[in-house]
Amino acid sequence: MLTTSRPVEVTRVRNGVRDACRDYAATEEPMEIRIFGKPFAVIMRTPGRDHDLVAGFLLSEQIVHGLDEISLIRHCTDPDTPNLKNIVDVTLQGAFPVSRIEERRQVVMNSSCGLCGRVTLDSLQAEVPEISETWDVEGAAVLRWPFRLRQTQEAFERTGGMHAAGLFAASGELVDVAEDVGRHNAVDKVVGHMLLAERLPLATFALMVSGRTSFEIVQKALLARIPIVAAVSAPSTLAIQLAQESGITLIGFVRDDSYNVYSHSDRVV
Amino acid sequence: MLTTSRPVEVTRVRNGVRDACRDYAATEEPMEIRIFGKPFAVIMRTPGRDHDLVAGFLLSEQIVHGLDEISLIRHCTDPDTPNLKNIVDVTLQGAFPVSRIEERRQVVMNSSCGLCGRVTLDSLQAEVPEISETWDVEGAAVLRWPFRLRQTQEAFERTGGMHAAGLFAASGELVDVAEDVGRHNAVDKVVGHMLLAERLPLATFALMVSGRTSFEIVQKALLARIPIVAAVSAPSTLAIQLAQESGITLIGFVRDDSYNVYSHSDRVV
Repeated sequence: MLTTSRPVEVTRVRNGVRDACRDYAATEEPMEIRIFGKPFAVIMRTPGRDHDLVAGFLLSEQIVHGLDEISLIRHCTDPDTPNLKNIVDVTLQGAFPVSRIEERRQVVMNSSCGLCGRVTLDSLQAEVPEISETWDVEGAAVLRWPFRLRQTQEAFERTGGMHAAGLFAASGELVDVAEDVGRHNAVDKVVGHMLLAERLPLATFALMVSGRTSFEIVQKALLARIPIVAAVSAPSTLAIQLAQESGITLIGFVRDDSYNVYSHSDRVV
Repeated sequence: MLTTSRPVEVTRVRNGVRDACRDYAATEEPMEIRIFGKPFAVIMRTPGRDHDLVAGFLLSEQIVHGLDEISLIRHCTDPDTPNLKNIVDVTLQGAFPVSRIEERRQVVMNSSCGLCGRVTLDSLQAEVPEISETWDVEGAAVLRWPFRLRQTQEAFERTGGMHAAGLFAASGELVDVAEDVGRHNAVDKVVGHMLLAERLPLATFALMVSGRTSFEIVQKALLARIPIVAAVSAPSTLAIQLAQESGITLIGFVRDDSYNVYSHSDRVV
């Protein structure tokens, strides 16, 4: 609990009256990921479930495609290194060529994009086939997801500054939920958790996020083979386009008694 | 207008009743920034005000420190290059050493962080002095900012999926406002606009953002020398820490008749 939020001193002004009080803020700290001892990326994240986050991030960046390619994920143990808790070492299975990591570093910096949206979408779809294995969800179940997600958002309740991602089974069960200052990290944590539990592909699950849906959120779902993605708020144009082209049902503005479906609406029955 | 949002076909479900209708989604497209013809970074952004965005991004990444270091910012004009509108060429003043750009590329990938929060904050403060030139703001003025910002958020009204950043003068005037699917981009656009207008440092202004405040938002304000940063929602722990250490007044949860001040509260009178 104390890792996801921390007490902060606040001057609260209400109706012109000042009060010094204590509040809680969402924890944000950088984490360095090293592969075979070489720095690969630094992510601003909320501490906690670091190994899940790293596993999900490696999958999203297409460094690995399954658990069998990961040999070890652990926090740095070198006693001469400061801030061990913010450094995670990854060892991959077999002799992973350094050149491939170098090539990926470039891609990470480039937000997983090529020169433009078209090139990006095309190149992604060339690597990943369209989603075909899927399931149908009842509209009434979709409407329950935001409530279930919100009930579990402990750090959000405390700080008001945290995103959440939840993974729902076809039964309606909330299988996992993660909170983070970054939306993408929350998704990487739930996907990474399932990857480490050898439960990929996630063809019988739905992903629900607390905020908006960007291209990258849909891309992460696609790589984990999640056929249904829902969000409390709006999707971007590129999120919709990728969902349409990759066979993902994209749902937005799930609120009270209504929602919008932006692609493959036949799966919502 | 059409660049910031686009019409999309939606299946709207309300109380179990399905309707096919047309809605608007916030436009998200990748933009590649080239420096001296070499790819430097790709940013997912909402098209429009690309030159402002590039100028602000170059300042944030500390590639440039003022307008005199920028020679030219223009969209790519090579007729053999596809998607010209998503590629921006930058020429810097003088013989800018390639090694410095290469070094910065590393930093961009690393989210402008060193190995941990402490190293990051220390190294940033070593490069940028604490903010000293500043102004006092009335609490009543702070409470007016969200309303003024919201009034101008045309794309948000249309899509519900857009962040905004506004720059307020001491007079209360909203000098500039930018919308983008990325919070950081919206800030880069307003700062970049002022940079290109030769109006930096922004010591007599306040920055207001529509969402939450992360470390990077405060860092961008610091580099533009903005002494007051306000947000509709919550700050992260690292945003608060950087604001405290760099002399920035950080205000959060500005809503109706109340707000919280997280650092240097003496400037809010």
